[in-house]
Amino acid sequence: MSNTRRYTLSLSCPDQVGIVAAVSGFMASHKGWITEANHHADETSQRFFMRQEVIADSLDLDYATLQQEFGALAQKFQMDWRISDSAQKKRVVIMVSKQEHCLYDLLARWQSQELDIDIPCVISNHDTFKGFVEWHGIPFHHVPVTPETKEAAYAKVMSLFEAAQGDVMVLARYMQILSPAMCEAYPGQIINIHHSFLPSFVGAKPYHQAFARGVKLIGATCHYVTSELDQGPIIEQDVIRIDHSDAPDDMVRYGKDIEKTVLARGLRYHLEDRVITHGNKTVVFR
Amino acid sequence: MSNTRRYTLSLSCPDQVGIVAAVSGFMASHKGWITEANHHADETSQRFFMRQEVIADSLDLDYATLQQEFGALAQKFQMDWRISDSAQKKRVVIMVSKQEHCLYDLLARWQSQELDIDIPCVISNHDTFKGFVEWHGIPFHHVPVTPETKEAAYAKVMSLFEAAQGDVMVLARYMQILSPAMCEAYPGQIINIHHSFLPSFVGAKPYHQAFARGVKLIGATCHYVTSELDQGPIIEQDVIRIDHSDAPDDMVRYGKDIEKTVLARGLRYHLEDRVITHGNKTVVFR
Amino acid sequence: MSNTRRYTLSLSCPDQVGIVAAVSGFMASHKGWITEANHHADETSQRFFMRQEVIADSLDLDYATLQQEFGALAQKFQMDWRISDSAQKKRVVIMVSKQEHCLYDLLARWQSQELDIDIPCVISNHDTFKGFVEWHGIPFHHVPVTPETKEAAYAKVMSLFEAAQGDVMVLARYMQILSPAMCEAYPGQIINIHHSFLPSFVGAKPYHQAFARGVKLIGATCHYVTSELDQGPIIEQDVIRIDHSDAPDDMVRYGKDIEKTVLARGLRYHLEDRVITHGNKTVVFR
Amino acid sequence: MSNTRRYTLSLSCPDQVGIVAAVSGFMASHKGWITEANHHADETSQRFFMRQEVIADSLDLDYATLQQEFGALAQKFQMDWRISDSAQKKRVVIMVSKQEHCLYDLLARWQSQELDIDIPCVISNHDTFKGFVEWHGIPFHHVPVTPETKEAAYAKVMSLFEAAQGDVMVLARYMQILSPAMCEAYPGQIINIHHSFLPSFVGAKPYHQAFARGVKLIGATCHYVTSELDQGPIIEQDVIRIDHSDAPDDMVRYGKDIEKTVLARGLRYHLEDRVITHGNKTVVFR
Repeated sequence: MSNTRRYTLSLSCPDQVGIVAAVSGFMASHKGWITEANHHADETSQRFFMRQEVIADSLDLDYATLQQEFGALAQKFQMDWRISDSAQKKRVVIMVSKQEHCLYDLLARWQSQELDIDIPCVISNHDTFKGFVEWHGIPFHHVPVTPETKEAAYAKVMSLFEAAQGDVMVLARYMQILSPAMCEAYPGQIINIHHSFLPSFVGAKPYHQAFARGVKLIGATCHYVTSELDQGPIIEQDVIRIDHSDAPDDMVRYGKDIEKTVLARGLRYHLEDRVITHGNKTVVFR
Repeated sequence: MSNTRRYTLSLSCPDQVGIVAAVSGFMASHKGWITEANHHADETSQRFFMRQEVIADSLDLDYATLQQEFGALAQKFQMDWRISDSAQKKRVVIMVSKQEHCLYDLLARWQSQELDIDIPCVISNHDTFKGFVEWHGIPFHHVPVTPETKEAAYAKVMSLFEAAQGDVMVLARYMQILSPAMCEAYPGQIINIHHSFLPSFVGAKPYHQAFARGVKLIGATCHYVTSELDQGPIIEQDVIRIDHSDAPDDMVRYGKDIEKTVLARGLRYHLEDRVITHGNKTVVFR
Repeated sequence: MSNTRRYTLSLSCPDQVGIVAAVSGFMASHKGWITEANHHADETSQRFFMRQEVIADSLDLDYATLQQEFGALAQKFQMDWRISDSAQKKRVVIMVSKQEHCLYDLLARWQSQELDIDIPCVISNHDTFKGFVEWHGIPFHHVPVTPETKEAAYAKVMSLFEAAQGDVMVLARYMQILSPAMCEAYPGQIINIHHSFLPSFVGAKPYHQAFARGVKLIGATCHYVTSELDQGPIIEQDVIRIDHSDAPDDMVRYGKDIEKTVLARGLRYHLEDRVITHGNKTVVFR
Repeated sequence: MSNTRRYTLSLSCPDQVGIVAAVSGFMASHKGWITEANHHADETSQRFFMRQEVIADSLDLDYATLQQEFGALAQKFQMDWRISDSAQKKRVVIMVSKQEHCLYDLLARWQSQELDIDIPCVISNHDTFKGFVEWHGIPFHHVPVTPETKEAAYAKVMSLFEAAQGDVMVLARYMQILSPAMCEAYPGQIINIHHSFLPSFVGAKPYHQAFARGVKLIGATCHYVTSELDQGPIIEQDVIRIDHSDAPDDMVRYGKDIEKTVLARGLRYHLEDRVITHGNKTVVFR
């Protein structure tokens, strides 16, 4: 990721002739230097998707004016749109349980600025990683979850997320099922890593399910969380080869390597406004 | 595949100490030169699996005597076993409909002797490939299948397979569901290629199912046919990356490349006695 | 590939603000319905690359007028550009020796119209595939090549290519090194498949080189032919896993599967005007 | 990795009939329960390779007696052999510079006991990770390396490695070229991760070399260090897809994901005695 300040426009709207010309014309009329541009037209739904990255300093208007002026154009085309500013780091709240691989991986990427984010806090239903997280200078909140305290626990998590002004919540192998209320409170803002190649092996113990079925590859899926378990829009997936000699424990071990990689890729796409949801699917402009 | 004549022993039996020693000792006592050997012990079922390739001319006994003498040892360990002789080419009957990719691919491998098999005939519910198959000097049987004639059609297919002395039947994108009777007549002898990463997207139009779910990879699965649709033991699988811009038609096109490769790999494993079934799963000694 | 007639514009030019706006504005002013669009700006060379697919019937001008009017705009931006018409099938001349896998694969794709091309002829230095090619209704030319007749042979090949009005020549495991004169006569028009992951293992017997070095993956590379052996711009590559038990003969066998797939992908990118060369590199808008 | 104590026998010797029978017979005569077994015969060199894992408690002799008795058999077959005991954790010394990804990854695997090793110390030519390493309770040694102090620095590293009773030294993106003396002091004990798909792009800045050549995949290679730069026996490799839009900086970022994964896989194979070197190549019994 370059250090030059950029604005990223992402939008979707009903498809029609002239959208690209209108948007590109707008940018050109303000001297915008576009460094990356992608479009997609979905034939079935006749919907159009677009993403452009512009160098901030090339434009002859400031962020607020850009928002305002683009808003007028956007209205004409009935766009769902957003312009984000790379100078505003996104705030990522990490949820974790007892498994370390995704947490270590995300903190390494944050520490080296590979991921240019703020991590206002880590929340966990266990205190396993309290010392590790705090060593990094990041606040750690231990919010235990039991069948009886579930409601209060999630209320607490939501208030911590609000207090942290979180932009996105990452379930980094958080081993609890969120309440429907919480899922619905943050549509397109909660990202999960599921340890199977969805839609195969929904729910608990997917590696044991994979072992029982005798598949020859296992996978991981990064998706937005919705109130339906493991059914949200898929952002990224990958697989790894196994064979008959691999017991579920071996799969758990191999699986970690794709889980953390797939989660990191999916999260990056989200943070860079490369993902536009569309019903229960995603357009991902890599 | 080397041209040297080899015997391939494959077996499974209840696990206990001394199986490898007994088998290896037997081979060594007959001066057998083992070129490849694999074992696997399944912890859950306490079952042991083994495969050995021996150079035929290194042994001091002939094929019939080998069978007889090994039979005594096998009985002691309650083995399910088989010794195949590379000098006996396996007879592969190909079933095809209107899609060309698996058929061209298999005939190319046969023509170049990459697959060292006999193809006694090709059977199809359409006559699309009659000329192509016959040009290769292979008999072609057109057996139309309609809802009304299904029973008679499959009886015809079975009698053609018997007349051809087929060892294995390959459904090379054969777009009909076999009758339960036929599936049960040839357990572990009918190999299918399904155009999804099973257990996802069982049944008809898997690429359309994949498109609807918004997955980021599509797959193909080579498996033995059982009377339960797409539920048989999996031999081999692979996947290919897609993205939001790929319509079902694009997936059909990409999918062909993995379908033919996965089918060819799975068939080769079967032909070389590398696959041992075990309940609804397979051990594949690659 | 859809059957709707499309024009495909591909171009490169010095980078500056306003190119996308100008091109998109031009298309919009003529009511062009853009179904696919891609850009790339190369920072090092400050060069800009672009590709757009437009539905032919959506435009209010015909192909000749389109060429003329766009030419004026193109000149202003110093573009290298081309607009191709999907109604004009590209003419692909296939060169082959004695290995069947790429030839069978390409003919299968042509036969099923997966590749929407004309194959005016196949040229070979052996007559191995004469019958097979002619059965498909495609003329076959046997042009033997010996050290002594090399010059005359390539003159013959070039005259056959000209007579066939070939757009692109595909070396489908053609086991002869073309003359520099021939390479230079058709820059960006001759596509080769090399059986290694270039730049590793240039030249003869790459699988034997790979075996000697003990690599754990082998590859294939589809590239444009230049007068420097295996040094031309790379279009597509892929790899496959091997291990210590694989002798060079096994690699040859595994390699076939990636060679034919990589060649087919690279050729498709070329045919769909997705490849723009840039020095010794390519931009590939997949 | 199961927690049951196991002995792992690995060996190579001139190939002849009866090796498997002799070894298996030996194990069976001592009631050894073999959980994993692999062989390989190299045709070119007529050398045989073997690995067996045996459950320690199943044997009727202790470790010392096992070594002694097997030694007699080994001598008969001129074996290079080793029996390691899973109760003796291997001691891994990590060398690192300023890049965090491999270090975080290895410590995560160690912390969760996925890698069942001791890390007696981490050595670095920078003090970047002093706090991080020490937080984990692992001693950290800062040994700066400058052109002038190189000799003394490597003498210091070697004495630290000796004092730590290290079994293996891992160069986890250690950005210095070891002295030939050091390479030769620990043959088969120093493991490096090189950020290219060797033999392509030896030496410095391989991602810049890859960018200049325009390859479509980049790779990482885990290998034993020898005195010839990047020429040692390869243990493991993998690749990841890139395209024209990826600058060297992007490759650096993508590359991290395969570097750490390939290093971890290669290290695990080494630790589990799955790797047997053979000239400049490896047999890896995965």
